[in-house]
Amino acid sequence: MHDCIFCKIVVGEVPSEKVYEDDDTLAFLDISPITKGHVLVITKKHYKDLLETPSSDLEKCILTIKKIAPKLLIALEADGFNIGLNNGEASGQVIKHIHFHIIPRYHNDNLRMWEGQSYQEGEMKDYGDKIRKFTIEL
Amino acid sequence: MHDCIFCKIVVGEVPSEKVYEDDDTLAFLDISPITKGHVLVITKKHYKDLLETPSSDLEKCILTIKKIAPKLLIALEADGFNIGLNNGEASGQVIKHIHFHIIPRYHNDNLRMWEGQSYQEGEMKDYGDKIRKFTIEL
Repeated sequence: MHDCIFCKIVVGEVPSEKVYEDDDTLAFLDISPITKGHVLVITKKHYKDLLETPSSDLEKCILTIKKIAPKLLIALEADGFNIGLNNGEASGQVIKHIHFHIIPRYHNDNLRMWEGQSYQEGEMKDYGDKIRKFTIEL
Repeated sequence: MHDCIFCKIVVGEVPSEKVYEDDDTLAFLDISPITKGHVLVITKKHYKDLLETPSSDLEKCILTIKKIAPKLLIALEADGFNIGLNNGEASGQVIKHIHFHIIPRYHNDNLRMWEGQSYQEGEMKDYGDKIRKFTIEL
């Protein structure tokens, strides 16, 4: 896509620190890392987000993540990692080209998870019912 | 696995608000939701984390996410969603049975993303080199 920075990275018009590449996916360092060595995994084809990405390309992304993540742990002597994907502006998605984050994590790196809330009595079932109305057909 | 709460949910020994199920995966509400309607997608088989999960089961999880996520948007009138997976204690993983989070998001829900850092001059290439030593073989 003409104005997409990730598409430009795919074709080499914009430089990046690539760490893995195959026919369908590319992995490179995020220039603004949550922790250093934070990797983005993208499809080479342009899709706006997860909803727009065909199943076959999503499968390729998850396989690339599975290949790279253990190597990141070794290379960076990290203790764990988070996988993340933001879908839509409200979720924090900035670049409109699907990308998964792999964020190396360390004991005591002081990154705090979002806090969970509680459901009121009966409310969890209400939410389940609300969702099942649409997932029952799947 | 005997003492795994998610395995007990799979077989129905522990109740849950299931929203989707197929032969290989199960989706149900997180009891401590980041936002209400927060869903967990798990494999029915017990695997500790992403690294231990066979590719075929990871593919099934991502396909379940792709099926459910758009329904969540509709059912909850959400504006977007985050996908997350925590691998290892250092990353925030609590239950040692692979699970993906689907977190409904709303404009102005006030959940703050982790902040990105900067690399020093030359440091990004150093990290790239460090990782490529292990990914070059892939």
